[in-house]
Formats: sequence, C-alpha cells, structure tokens
Amino acid sequence: MKTSTVAELLSKDIKLHDIEVKGWVRTFRANRFIALNDGSTIHNIQCVVDFEKTEEATLKRITTGAAVHIKGELVESQGKGQQVEIQVKSIVILGDSDPETYPIQPKKHSFEFLRENAHLRTRTSTFSAVMRLRSSLSFAIHKYFNENGFYYMHTPIVTGSDAEGAGEMFRVSTLDSKNPPLNEDGSVNYKEDFFGKETNLTVSGQLEAETYAMSLGKVYTFGPTFRAENSNTSRHLAEFWMIEPEVAFMDLAGNMDLAEDFLKSILNYVLEHNKDDLEFLEARLLDEEKVKPQADRSEMSLIEKLKFVADNHFKRVSYTEAIDILKNSKPNKKKKFKYIIEEWGADLQSEHERFLVEKHFKCPVILFDYPANIKAFYMRLNEDGKTVRAMDILFPGIGEMVGGSQREERLEVLREKMKALDIDEDELWWYLDLRKYGTAVHSGFGLGFERLVMFVTGMGNIRDVIPYPRTPQNAEF
Amino acid sequence: MKTSTVAELLSKDIKLHDIEVKGWVRTFRANRFIALNDGSTIHNIQCVVDFEKTEEATLKRITTGAAVHIKGELVESQGKGQQVEIQVKSIVILGDSDPETYPIQPKKHSFEFLRENAHLRTRTSTFSAVMRLRSSLSFAIHKYFNENGFYYMHTPIVTGSDAEGAGEMFRVSTLDSKNPPLNEDGSVNYKEDFFGKETNLTVSGQLEAETYAMSLGKVYTFGPTFRAENSNTSRHLAEFWMIEPEVAFMDLAGNMDLAEDFLKSILNYVLEHNKDDLEFLEARLLDEEKVKPQADRSEMSLIEKLKFVADNHFKRVSYTEAIDILKNSKPNKKKKFKYIIEEWGADLQSEHERFLVEKHFKCPVILFDYPANIKAFYMRLNEDGKTVRAMDILFPGIGEMVGGSQREERLEVLREKMKALDIDEDELWWYLDLRKYGTAVHSGFGLGFERLVMFVTGMGNIRDVIPYPRTPQNAEF
Repeated sequence: MKTSTVAELLSKDIKLHDIEVKGWVRTFRANRFIALNDGSTIHNIQCVVDFEKTEEATLKRITTGAAVHIKGELVESQGKGQQVEIQVKSIVILGDSDPETYPIQPKKHSFEFLRENAHLRTRTSTFSAVMRLRSSLSFAIHKYFNENGFYYMHTPIVTGSDAEGAGEMFRVSTLDSKNPPLNEDGSVNYKEDFFGKETNLTVSGQLEAETYAMSLGKVYTFGPTFRAENSNTSRHLAEFWMIEPEVAFMDLAGNMDLAEDFLKSILNYVLEHNKDDLEFLEARLLDEEKVKPQADRSEMSLIEKLKFVADNHFKRVSYTEAIDILKNSKPNKKKKFKYIIEEWGADLQSEHERFLVEKHFKCPVILFDYPANIKAFYMRLNEDGKTVRAMDILFPGIGEMVGGSQREERLEVLREKMKALDIDEDELWWYLDLRKYGTAVHSGFGLGFERLVMFVTGMGNIRDVIPYPRTPQNAEF
Repeated sequence: MKTSTVAELLSKDIKLHDIEVKGWVRTFRANRFIALNDGSTIHNIQCVVDFEKTEEATLKRITTGAAVHIKGELVESQGKGQQVEIQVKSIVILGDSDPETYPIQPKKHSFEFLRENAHLRTRTSTFSAVMRLRSSLSFAIHKYFNENGFYYMHTPIVTGSDAEGAGEMFRVSTLDSKNPPLNEDGSVNYKEDFFGKETNLTVSGQLEAETYAMSLGKVYTFGPTFRAENSNTSRHLAEFWMIEPEVAFMDLAGNMDLAEDFLKSILNYVLEHNKDDLEFLEARLLDEEKVKPQADRSEMSLIEKLKFVADNHFKRVSYTEAIDILKNSKPNKKKKFKYIIEEWGADLQSEHERFLVEKHFKCPVILFDYPANIKAFYMRLNEDGKTVRAMDILFPGIGEMVGGSQREERLEVLREKMKALDIDEDELWWYLDLRKYGTAVHSGFGLGFERLVMFVTGMGNIRDVIPYPRTPQNAEF
C-alpha cells in the first residue's frame, strides 16, 4: 500500500479508506489520541488508538517526537476540530523519543531556546510554517522571473574584487593561518593563495548580473551574500540570501514597475498557496501582540497586511518631496525623531522611512532620485548633477524592502565617479567594458530575501526565518 | 509603443505590424542586413536598413556589438532562412562598439579566449544557449521538487563543522591575516574570529538537510558548495552548485526511483522548452566532432542522447555484480584499463564507470551497495556488515552524475562508525540527535549541477557551463 502524507489524508478529495501514514507524534493524550505530523502541512491528523488492543509496551513508546508507522482506516471524525481521523489498526514505533530528554516538549518554548535547538525547531508548528513559507516564496520568485522571460544566473560567491563597496567582507583563503607566506615588504603574499590573489565572500552579485543583462537581456540572481559587520541585531545576518534582477533597456520607471509587480505577484502566490500556514502565523502574531500595549500592536492582521500590499498601488515619491514632508512633520518639529531632518541631503533613517509609510502615506512607498553622495558609484547621475536614479521601496513595519537603481551607462561619467571614490579601474575593467561596447540604459534592484520572509511570516527576528543563522560569534550546526 | 523581444517577433502567433525592438548587432552585411539579437532567443532577427534613406554617419556606427533601437515594420521575409524580417524605419544607436577593439568579432573564437572574456561571452550564440539552458534546468529542478511536495531549504554556506569529509575546505575569516591573535600554545586563537571559532565554506548541505527531512518530510537544497582541491581539470571547479534532496521514510530503492524520475523529468523539461538552444548546441557539437576520428565521436547526437536517457529505464546493478562484469571484461583482461580490477573492494574509476555505461549496458546505470570502507560515514550499513546502501548514477559520456545513499539511522551504529573514523561527536551532536529522537529510515542524493549542465549542453569543459568559474589561480570577474 502506498503511504499517504498527512496533507493528502486531510485534503477534501481523498477517496482512500485503508491508509498508511508515517510521521512524528506531536502529542498523545488519554492513551488514545495521537496528533501526528509529517511536515506536509501545519495540521496534525488525529490517530485513534484502541488501547485495549494495543500492547502496553507499545503504548508507552508513543511519546512526543517518536517516529511511527500507522496503518488504519480513514473515517469521519466523531470529535470536534477535524473532519477525518484515523482508526489505528496497527502502529509500529520506528524511532523512540525519550520524553525525559527530548528538547521539544509539547509546550511553548522561547524562540531563544529553539534557536539553540535549530536542528529540531522545525518540529514545532511555528517554524515548520515559517520554513514552508520560505520555500514557497523561493518558488514564487523563480516562477515569476521564469514566466517573465528572465534567466536565472549564478553569480560567483568567492570574489577577487572588493569594489562592490556594500560592506565589510570575509576573507577566503587556504594559506597557513599562523604562518602565511610574506612578500619582501612584509605583507601577506596572496599570490601563493588558492586563487592567486586575495579573495572574499561576495556582498552582491549585481555587477556580474549587469554583464549578463547586457547580453541576455533580463536576468536575476538568487544566492547567498555576506557581510562581516559586527551587528548583533534582530535585523542583521552575516550570511543571507539576496535576489537581484537586472534588465537591459529598462529605466528607473520600468524598474519601479517591475519591483512592484514582482512583489505583488509573490505575495499573491503565498496568499493563494499557503493559506493554512499564514492563518496559523496570523493567530500566533495576534497572540504574541496581546501582551503589548494597544498602541504597539499591528493595525492590520498578518493576512490583511499582505493583501493590503498586494492590492494597493505603491506611492512614488521623490527624495526631495520626502524631505519636505519629513521636515514639516510633527515628530520632526517636536524633535521626536532621533535624527532631526534639517536639510536636503540627509540620509534617511529607519524612523523616517517608517513615518512616511506608516503615518503619512499609509501604504508602501517608493522613494526615488536620491542625493548622489549617499548612494553607490554605479547609479545613474541625473541631469541635475546632484541626484541619482536610485529607488528604495519601503514596507510597513519593516522599512526598506528593496533597493535599486538605473545604472550609469556612460563610460566617462562612470570613470569620473570611480576616480572620485578611488575605485581601481583595473579591478573593474570588465565592468567598464560594458560601457565601451554596446552600452545602453539598464536597471535592477536587490531584495534581501530574509526581510521578505520576515514580512510575510510576521516573525520579528531575522534569525528565525533562515534555517541556520550566521551571526557574530555563532556558526553552530 | 511597447518594445518587443526578438523571441516575441519570431514567434508564430505574432500579430504586430509596427514594432520596436532593442538589442545588439551581431553582424551587419552589405550595408543593409542587420542580424539583431537581444538574448531572448538563440535566433537573430534580420533588420533590413534602407541605406539610401539612412545617414552615412549612422550606417558607420552599425557595428558588431553596438546596441541599437529599431522601429519598423514586421513583414514576411523575401530572403531565405527566416519567416519574417523588419523593414527598418528608424534606427538609433544606443551604444557604439568600436570594431577595432571589440573582443567578440563575428568569427569563431576559442573557448580559452572567451573564458578570458567571460563578461562578454554570452554575446556569442554558444554561451547564450548554454546559459539559457542552465537557467532552464534550474527552473525545471525547482518545479519538479515543488510539484512533488518538497521544500526548498537554504543550508548554511559558512560552516563551523569540518566533519562533512567530502574534501579540502576554504577557511573563512576576518582575523588579521598577517598577525592573527594566538593562543598561549602558539596556535591561532579562533575565538577572536568573527564566528568565535574556525569556519570554512561548506562542501555539502546534506547533514543539515537531514535535520529538515526529519521534520518537514521532503526537502532539497540547491546552493553553492566548495572544494579547495588543486585540481586543474576540465571537470573540477573550486565553487560549484549542488542539488541535494533528502527524504524521510524513504529507503535506497525509493531513492533510486526518485533520482531516476527527477533526472528524466528535468531532461524532458528542457527537451520541451529549449528546443532551439539544444538544436544549436547539437549542431555545434557535431561540427566540433568532425575533426575527431570516427571512433572518438559520439554515437548519438546531443538531443538523441537526452531523449535516450529520458526514455530508458536506468539499469540497476549491485557493486558486486559490477565488479564481476569488470573483472571478466576485455579491457580488464587485456590490461587496457589504467587501473586493473583485481578484487572486490576496488574503488571504481571513471574508466570503469564509462565501460559499464557505454560499452556493457549501453544505458544509464545505477550502481548500489558499495563496500563500506570506500564510502562516507553516514551511509546505512547493510546486514552483511561490509557494504553500505550507497548508490551512484552513471551517465554516458560523463560518468557519475548522482551520488546518494540511505543514511545510517541507528544511533549506536553511527556512533561506532564515527569513532572508527575519529569524527568528534561533540561537533555533530545535533546530527546524532536525529537518531536519538524519532529516528527513521531516510535517504537522499547529491547532483553536481555543472555536471548536469555539461551533459545537457554537450560542453566539454566545466569552466564553460558556469558564468564565472573559480579554479586554482583564477577568481577573475
């Protein structure tokens, strides 16, 4: 007989009567009711054991976390809370779970405790829902780009370039760490290293993605990126996944259209495909927020928030307009902002972004045309000579979700910018080549995947939306 | 007017008459015919310029590699070789390409030369076809797993464990490379490193994938993996992408079924979706092989080979049977093998695998039940005490495509194995936990993605199937 998954058994179109299922015991109560889960759905299936016909020794081994193989009949449930249940005919314990030592007890655990047991935390409803959503979002992203004529590109993880400028980097080396070979001047001789030069973990695949956009037209990356910054916060990881589309012949307006359509599309995908998990996480969040003062609770429920973003037009506002709004805002005048906005040119902080999104516009906002000197070297200079065609998309509750720009396609302007910032042309000769041979307007953006997963799942700590988080002083598992 | 892609313009259901298109000039001949490509398809669209109505200065700038914006009429082609063509009404040069210096001339370049210009090589038909196929295969993989109830899992790239044992590793560090902090005994004090311990780039996500299989049921990874081996061959990369599914309650037979179904499914996907690119690469391969002696040419064309694998049952042969076949084979008896098979226990070399697949069985072969001592510690020991439930899938022309196993689910057996191999239990405490709490039969396999891309594209060097290859002494771009 084919083994069924719990999701199959609970689906409405199930026709089976005699069934087999394998999974893990979540709870066992009254020596009779097993709540069984196999990861295929947030829901458990109730398996009713006839304790009179089951050996005492077996009953004792039906404990939380045990792996079991059940054969039985799928019947309409007599009890409340489920449509169907399994009348168990035979149960085999595949793997025991000592209730005295098993870390995942049938009770509420703190997220801190579960992080220390990250290898077992997907055995809880919360983390299984989060990781199913993470998977579903990944697929939605690939599906969106595939359907829209984009090619998926694997940009390199180990990079010999440190010109990306997005942050501190991790060195990758096979040299003897204690006694590295030295040059005559006493510096480390990286020519003897594996790659024949100093190499680091990438902070972004954008520059390489541009090379492919300028030949294949529309490409995207979806891969790991790294920051060696000592930021021990609930919003930073040393290793995280990023999505970076890059499109030839597309200007900044097209870039905004793409980002908005893309985000709405993937939100609609999970709203359609992950209803059960979202409902569970919505209830969890509601429960979590109950202890907060009313003012700190979310105005919308999790699903309402996702629908709100999916259904509403993103408000497009220039940086200059935003500065005006912020300068004249109550919290600025009353000096409630930590960083008071005094003049054009100020770098916006999270508090300002959240004010714009949550208080002023009350919808997702796309800010564009930022001052050149607070943005990266590769962004297209506007005709005003002081702003660049950059955009950031700000989401309620989370702030910046996407950062992108039209890229500087003019060789001489790019060269001047690099010179001013002391970026070595020899290092980016290939990037300059794109401007020498068949250059054209092109644009792209970056989306931090974990930020998106946090937004969709309502989880408050970025360590809880990636299987094995890498943070300062932590590379366990 | 909406800009169309070349693929759209060449598709049969195109209804447009007045069109706009942007792309790069591949060739311009007789001052009249532009072959235009934008990456959306292997095919160029012919754009016919009326040179009498076009300024001389503009005509001169229509050079190979230039980016152009063309408006015109889509009409039935008068010439041979295409159904439709564009009668150009206006042409704007977006980006020039100096024919004197542009590296990608309209002629045949060596792959070595193109590797040095990897940022431009997707402007050739061969590399654009390869990279479109790479993208298509990636999507087919995600699609297959998504449709079959698997969750995509991002396993960590930076790992604190060196117990995976699959090869030499790259160290990841932020310590001062010249003067690292030392312990009293003179060793490097990794406690002061970013992660508080020595960390490396992962060689496999399998062990972490097992943790998720044992809670979510069916998972897979698709991410970069690393080997710091000084192998400068056409089949090795220091950085490559790997796919690793892992399934709870699945034994080795199920693992074989899964791998076979999976491989066939993704081959069928590209046969259906990438016909044009495959036909181009098939012709390229045929052309390349023309200079070879008849005996060294492929027996099947590229597409025939893909169909052959997609349509034929994979032959399942135990290691023990394979050794018998090899021992009695002609090349073994005549000592044509470099490594003569003398007895049971020998590790099979590529020459043996290819003999089995290409000469003996003439079909894909799954070898299983290998001697325990030539396989990894985590593989399930058979009842005979000397073989493990390992499998390798061997493909014609390429050898090992997939390696997998049923995992050792018994705590005590695993512990003994680790002890014998001097693997520290403290390092893999979480891996052992899976055997302590609700253990069950489970299995999985690994597929080197670049091997698959080589097989599908017919490319002979692994450096030519990944955008920016990382190899000893090379981390350019």
